Amino acid sequence: MSLLVVGSIALDSIFTPFGETADALGGSAVYFSVAGALLHPVQVVGVVGSDYPVGELERLAPRGIDWSGVEHAAGESFRWKGKYSYDLQSRETLDTRLGVFADFQPKLPEAFRSAKFLFLGNIDPELQLGVLSQVRRPTLVACDTMNYWIQSKRAVLLELLSRVDVLMVNDSEARELSGDWNIHRAGRWILAHGPKRVVIKQGEYGALLLEPARTFYVPAFPLETVYDPTGAGDAFAGGFMAYLARTGIVSDDHIRRAMVVGATMGSYAVEQFGIRAFDHVTLADVEARMRTFQDLTHVALAEPLT
Amino acid sequence: MSLLVVGSIALDSIFTPFGETADALGGSAVYFSVAGALLHPVQVVGVVGSDYPVGELERLAPRGIDWSGVEHAAGESFRWKGKYSYDLQSRETLDTRLGVFADFQPKLPEAFRSAKFLFLGNIDPELQLGVLSQVRRPTLVACDTMNYWIQSKRAVLLELLSRVDVLMVNDSEARELSGDWNIHRAGRWILAHGPKRVVIKQGEYGALLLEPARTFYVPAFPLETVYDPTGAGDAFAGGFMAYLARTGIVSDDHIRRAMVVGATMGSYAVEQFGIRAFDHVTLADVEARMRTFQDLTHVALAEPLT
Repeated sequence: MSLLVVGSIALDSIFTPFGETADALGGSAVYFSVAGALLHPVQVVGVVGSDYPVGELERLAPRGIDWSGVEHAAGESFRWKGKYSYDLQSRETLDTRLGVFADFQPKLPEAFRSAKFLFLGNIDPELQLGVLSQVRRPTLVACDTMNYWIQSKRAVLLELLSRVDVLMVNDSEARELSGDWNIHRAGRWILAHGPKRVVIKQGEYGALLLEPARTFYVPAFPLETVYDPTGAGDAFAGGFMAYLARTGIVSDDHIRRAMVVGATMGSYAVEQFGIRAFDHVTLADVEARMRTFQDLTHVALAEPLT
Repeated sequence: MSLLVVGSIALDSIFTPFGETADALGGSAVYFSVAGALLHPVQVVGVVGSDYPVGELERLAPRGIDWSGVEHAAGESFRWKGKYSYDLQSRETLDTRLGVFADFQPKLPEAFRSAKFLFLGNIDPELQLGVLSQVRRPTLVACDTMNYWIQSKRAVLLELLSRVDVLMVNDSEARELSGDWNIHRAGRWILAHGPKRVVIKQGEYGALLLEPARTFYVPAFPLETVYDPTGAGDAFAGGFMAYLARTGIVSDDHIRRAMVVGATMGSYAVEQFGIRAFDHVTLADVEARMRTFQDLTHVALAEPLT
């Protein structure tokens, strides 16, 4: 079933203790797409400026990414510059230039309006709502957000929450949104505000799936080398949504598998700079890593204690 | 098979955002024992001063705790006073008084020297080695340590490491010991220094079991209320070791189950102040919570992607 993402298409300049990149392809829609396209075609809605290396996007198209919903606007592309701490645990934004993103009003091509799986990447919740209203009858809608919108557009964000199926945020965002430090109570707060499920990403510790009556935990893949955490959350979302779109089924079992696919994509994202890691990943690689994930938490509780 | 622990028997004064205790029963050997005794009898080696409320220890004996290896010395008991941050993520030691612990030289009763499962709680590694040398032919030896010993008695600690089967530490200790920030590389460093397995406790995120060729992850139990993290690691160790002593088998499957028992005990420990949580926990409770743990990470990877 068709899969649509709206999000940023950026030029990232990233400094980590292991190296740096300048004006590299990035943004939530780009990370989502390169990860998701491994499993299912992705339609992208976004905007680029006149300085964007459009050829580099086009080179990714054969992987199954439909860029026809990307607006080409006059002006500078969205740029983000960030620096990670020595342990990659925190990052500082050195510079954000919205460029053409400041006046972006997403308009979906007619063909995209029948998308069944919709991911609203981390952009202004007003734009997320605008996109949502253009999609006719989606099967599953998931969205991301960030502290900036939680603080500056809380009312709009709550309106959006009441209309999505899955919220995907990291732990600090869940805490800020709910005003509760305990991550399980924070999740319960979010569930009470609309979404049927909330995915809480916890970086090197993995990710939680909270549902009204059940919780699922997928750890992070054991990696001895992590180069660049940028985009891990969007790659997670890409894997998660693409797996569901590929199967077309939203059962509890499928959602759990989608979590493992998401964690797998997140693990690839951090192993190299930018989107580079996805250049050579195959579906067989994904599958092998998913099996390792399964073994990572597998336990058989044999004979009863009592 | 017989299970022996050596560790501190303390009087804890704890301040958390949710309340406080003064001179309450605590210490690594006490938390280990109340958790472990739910599954298997525990023999304890330690020391108390003349001011210790020995009657309170004795009241715990019927649960299966043999205090006959506890030395009664003239002087003050070991006291620890600590304060937790509002989010329970960090704690400050306000006061440590070693008391009779300063001159403690563990001597094992003859009956304890044939213990098969031995846990060396967090005390001076010289004392840990002293106890280890008194046990004849243990099946499995696990030990804990802390940053203080890593810094002040590194050589003795490395000697100890070369003689134990399992090291159980938290993530900051693993990082400090190995000098490596990446937790998986830190674990590999530890494995190269003796232990066949290393358990790395990660607080609210759960615990990792690292082996040369395989990794296991048990998440923390989803708790909406956490009152007092004190003793969670020792309760974990108590559950882990008591499960193995109960079954008498040290297979990969049993070790994974022991991790789940450990995480279960840790989750009880933090739900109430001090050792109180264990007053009413039954084996059936433990079993039910273990099943929830199993469901928490259960995923079936159905049909292949390729």
